[in-house]
Amino acid sequence: MEKNPKFAVLGGGSWATAIVKMLTENLNEVGWYMRSTYALEHLKRQQHNPNYLSSVEFKVEQLKLTNDINEAVAYADYLIFVIPSAFLHSELSKLTVSLKDKIIFSAIKGIVPETGLIVGEHFHDEYDIPFNNIGVITGPCHAEEVALERLSYLTIASNDEEKAKIMAKHLSSDYIKCKTSDDIIGTEYAAVLKNIYSVAAGIAHGLGYGDNFQSVLMSNAIREMKRFIKKVHKMKRNINDSAYLGDLLVTGYSIFSRNRMFGNMIGKGYTVKSAQMEMSMIAEGYYAAKTAYELDATKAARTPIIDAVHAILYENKNPKKVFKKLTDKLD
Amino acid sequence: MEKNPKFAVLGGGSWATAIVKMLTENLNEVGWYMRSTYALEHLKRQQHNPNYLSSVEFKVEQLKLTNDINEAVAYADYLIFVIPSAFLHSELSKLTVSLKDKIIFSAIKGIVPETGLIVGEHFHDEYDIPFNNIGVITGPCHAEEVALERLSYLTIASNDEEKAKIMAKHLSSDYIKCKTSDDIIGTEYAAVLKNIYSVAAGIAHGLGYGDNFQSVLMSNAIREMKRFIKKVHKMKRNINDSAYLGDLLVTGYSIFSRNRMFGNMIGKGYTVKSAQMEMSMIAEGYYAAKTAYELDATKAARTPIIDAVHAILYENKNPKKVFKKLTDKLD
Repeated sequence: MEKNPKFAVLGGGSWATAIVKMLTENLNEVGWYMRSTYALEHLKRQQHNPNYLSSVEFKVEQLKLTNDINEAVAYADYLIFVIPSAFLHSELSKLTVSLKDKIIFSAIKGIVPETGLIVGEHFHDEYDIPFNNIGVITGPCHAEEVALERLSYLTIASNDEEKAKIMAKHLSSDYIKCKTSDDIIGTEYAAVLKNIYSVAAGIAHGLGYGDNFQSVLMSNAIREMKRFIKKVHKMKRNINDSAYLGDLLVTGYSIFSRNRMFGNMIGKGYTVKSAQMEMSMIAEGYYAAKTAYELDATKAARTPIIDAVHAILYENKNPKKVFKKLTDKLD
Repeated sequence: MEKNPKFAVLGGGSWATAIVKMLTENLNEVGWYMRSTYALEHLKRQQHNPNYLSSVEFKVEQLKLTNDINEAVAYADYLIFVIPSAFLHSELSKLTVSLKDKIIFSAIKGIVPETGLIVGEHFHDEYDIPFNNIGVITGPCHAEEVALERLSYLTIASNDEEKAKIMAKHLSSDYIKCKTSDDIIGTEYAAVLKNIYSVAAGIAHGLGYGDNFQSVLMSNAIREMKRFIKKVHKMKRNINDSAYLGDLLVTGYSIFSRNRMFGNMIGKGYTVKSAQMEMSMIAEGYYAAKTAYELDATKAARTPIIDAVHAILYENKNPKKVFKKLTDKLD
C-alpha cells in the first residue's frame, strides 16, 4: 500500500454524497462513481448532486467523477460501496477490473437479495476478498445532518485495525468523529436488523400504538438484536455502543426513515405492494426481514419482532392481529 | 393482610390521575388524596380532574376522595405516593397516622431534596419502613397515553415478590401490562437518572445538535446509567429492560418532557433561574443532577453526562463549551 492511498465512493445517493463530502475535507482528490450521467453532468456544472443533499457544494476539481465503475475501481485503493443492496449484484457484474488487493468498505446496510448475505460476506464469498481487506462504515448517521455539518459519530469496523484507522482518519473532521471496531460481522448485522425494527416501529405507529409502546419496542429490539448477533457471530461486544443501539435509535425514532414510513403505511392498511408503489422505492428492511427470518429459521435466538414483521410482509398476516400477539411477547 | 387489600393514591398530578384510572379498572373503590380542594370539588361535580388528564372520566362513586392525607393513609393497605419529590417531605410532615404495616409504593421518580435520598430509601431511613414493604412503580409511561388507553408497560419492583404481584394485578388491564422486578434501588435510580439525561438531551437540542448526536447521547447515557447504578447497588440486571432503557427513551425522546424542555431553554441561552420561572415549575432533573453528582463525588463510576449537566446547572459553566468538551468523551 502506498503512503497516500486513494479513495473512491461508489454510489450516487444521499449517503454516498455525504461520505464524499466527508472525504473531501481531508483529500485533494476523491473518486466518485455514479450510474446517472444526468447527475454527473449536473455535478460538474452546478457543483452539487441534483437528487440528494443538493445543498452540499463540492469543489468539482476535488472530484474524480465517472460513470464507469471500472474506472473508479482502477483508480482507488480504498473502495467505499454505497449502492443499495438490491442493485449491488448487477453493478458488480459490470466489473472487468479486478478487486484483488482492493480494500473494500461497505456503507450499504443491507442484505444482497441474490445471495442472502451481508455485504462483507458477499464480497468475501463471491469475490474472494479476504476479511482483512473488508470493512464496514456505520452510523448512527443521517446523511442529511452531515450535509448540515451537524456533529455525527461513525464506527469504522475492520478485522485489520490499521485499515480501520486509515479510513477513520480520512472521514474525520470538525463534525465527524470516528471510532474503530473489529466487529465487522456484528456492526453490519446491526445496521441490517435496525431496518427491520424501524419497519416494526412504523407498523406500530400506523396501527395507533403510542410513544410508551415505541420505547418498549425499542428496548425489546436491542435485546433481540443482541441475541441474534450473538448467534451469528459470537464475540465480546457492548450492544449499547453507538454502532448498535445508537444506530437502532436514530432510525427507529426518525420519522424520515424510509423503513419506518414503509411500516407506517403497512400499519395503516396498505398492502405491501401498494406501499412499495406509493413510495416508489423499496425499504431495505423489506429484504432484511426475509433474510434475517430465514437465517434464524431454527429459532435458536428468540426474535419475536423479526418474526412479526416477517409474518406481515411475507405470510400475508393481518398486522393488527400479529402486533396484538407480539405485545404479549414483549416486556 | 386481608384478602382484598385497599389501595390509595396520594397526589393530584397527571401521573397520579393515570394510576387512579388504572386502579379503577380493577377495584370498586380507590382512595385518592390530593391537596387541592378546588380540584377535589371539581372531580366530585364534573367527574374529572380539572388540571390533569381532564379527558379521563371517573365514576365518582368509585373514588374515596379526600384532601386529608391522614384519612387516605388510614384507609388503605397499599399506599402509592405520586407527589413531586420536592413536596414529599412537607406532605409527610402532616402525618399523624402511622405508616407502620403499610405497603408503600413510590411512583415519584425523584430525589427528596431534604435528604438527598431516593423515595424508597427516604421511607426506609426516615420512617423505619422495612424494604420488604417498599416498592416502585416505573414506566416507560407517559400519563397522557394512559388517558388515551394506549398500550403501556409498567415495571413493579419490590423486594417482596408477592407484593409486587399484587400491585401488578391491580394495575393491569387491556391497555396496561405489568412485569415485576426485585430491583427496587436500580429501577428507582433509573427513573431518577433518566431525567438528568433528558435535561442533557434538551440542552443538546437547544444548542443545535441534531438527531445523530441525540442517538449517540442516549447510547452513552444508558452505558453511564449502567455504571452508575452498578456502583450504587450491584446486582444482576439487564439495563436494556424497559424499566431502564425504555424509561430513558420515552423521556429522552419526548418533546413534551418537562426535563427536556427545561434543558432546551438552557441550551438556547436562558439562565437556570429564568428557565425555571418561564416554566413555572421545576424539572425533577434539576435536583437529580445535584444529588447524583454528589453521590458519585468520588467519580467511582465514569459519568461525563451527569457531570456536564451539573457543571451547567450548578457551576455556572457555559453550556456550549461544556457540551463541546462532552462530545470528546462520548463515542
